[in-house]
Amino acid sequence: MAKDYGEVKLFGVVGSPFVRRVQIALELKGVKYTFIEEDLKNKSDLLLKYNPIHKKVPVLVHNGKPLAESLVIIEYIDEIWRNHPFLPQEPYDRALARFWSKFIDEKCLPPISKASFTACKEERDKGTEESLEALEFLENELKHKFFGGETIGIVDIAAGFIAFWLPAIEEAVGLKILTHEKFPKLSKWSEEYTNHVVVKENLPQRDKVVGFFKARYASIINASK
Amino acid sequence: MAKDYGEVKLFGVVGSPFVRRVQIALELKGVKYTFIEEDLKNKSDLLLKYNPIHKKVPVLVHNGKPLAESLVIIEYIDEIWRNHPFLPQEPYDRALARFWSKFIDEKCLPPISKASFTACKEERDKGTEESLEALEFLENELKHKFFGGETIGIVDIAAGFIAFWLPAIEEAVGLKILTHEKFPKLSKWSEEYTNHVVVKENLPQRDKVVGFFKARYASIINASK
Repeated sequence: MAKDYGEVKLFGVVGSPFVRRVQIALELKGVKYTFIEEDLKNKSDLLLKYNPIHKKVPVLVHNGKPLAESLVIIEYIDEIWRNHPFLPQEPYDRALARFWSKFIDEKCLPPISKASFTACKEERDKGTEESLEALEFLENELKHKFFGGETIGIVDIAAGFIAFWLPAIEEAVGLKILTHEKFPKLSKWSEEYTNHVVVKENLPQRDKVVGFFKARYASIINASK
Repeated sequence: MAKDYGEVKLFGVVGSPFVRRVQIALELKGVKYTFIEEDLKNKSDLLLKYNPIHKKVPVLVHNGKPLAESLVIIEYIDEIWRNHPFLPQEPYDRALARFWSKFIDEKCLPPISKASFTACKEERDKGTEESLEALEFLENELKHKFFGGETIGIVDIAAGFIAFWLPAIEEAVGLKILTHEKFPKLSKWSEEYTNHVVVKENLPQRDKVVGFFKARYASIINASK
């Protein structure tokens, strides 16, 4: 890239699917950035200054200007760096991409969390059922190699949680949601996505993620006893 | 407008703040549309066909293509009809507009609902406290006549709930959140917004809204006895 877009910093933690969304977006665009690792138990003054509302990662700081919320950041990145577009060109297709990204955050992630990290078995079963229902909509939406067509788009990046973190959670807590039988297209997409050269290099170590979720599950079950 | 943009239909209900967002957006742009009133207790086949996922209003149908989620619809409208832009030009300002719209839906509306329509007094108090905290952030964000500057933008349209529905809820349930003392800028904005000629003509009848919330509150309190 000839044009100088200035300084890019990303405040994050290594295991977070939301931080990884932004990292993958930056890497797909070929943007050079500095990763600043946060300790969520002892958040830095800078993080609290940059994201006083949510006090969460990821925070992108571009030429000193901070921005929070992974999907908002990804659209921003897409508007600044125009190579490898994450959103389609046509307004209706752009709207659908926004709709599905929102759907993933609001309708897929909460039930997956409920199915995985709740002590009450009934709640877990309800979470599983809701997760299956939500993923069924995504399954039917997959019409190409990626949600974005032949290349990775914003919906793929948003759905990265389902491709990588969900299978790790399933292993950690003994759950089965994303099966080849029920979701052949989504399972194939999950493989394609996690094996994409840029994505693969920007995912955390699977065994560490599984270990993290195992510990989280154990602490929830123990606390309920 | 010389260009013919085709047929626009909006599926909605009269009292919904989310449907009103879309109506106000269409009216500000000068878009002609047909309003199709839904009975939420007996949803039409068309609504279920157009929004099989959420089964909710508003749904915008533009030349036969359906779209759900009020904020997604507003960005779509803004991309099709370019007069009276709802989002700023600069990518960073656009990102902030998306951030604040999301903030309103995720951090303002849920606590206001908790403060107003919960039987448990402790929960209501907690909701009030969270609402005050969230509105404080909005108060500090208001730097011009509107969130959008001198004209109404997407954040104003999203925050319409706070300008019109919140005071109606306060009256219905005997709550005080949006006061001139605590929120002088937001209170002034609320007046400016609801008195804007296009907005004013596109709000439901206040007494009906108050009556609706009174009945809702009474049914929640009665159910808890």
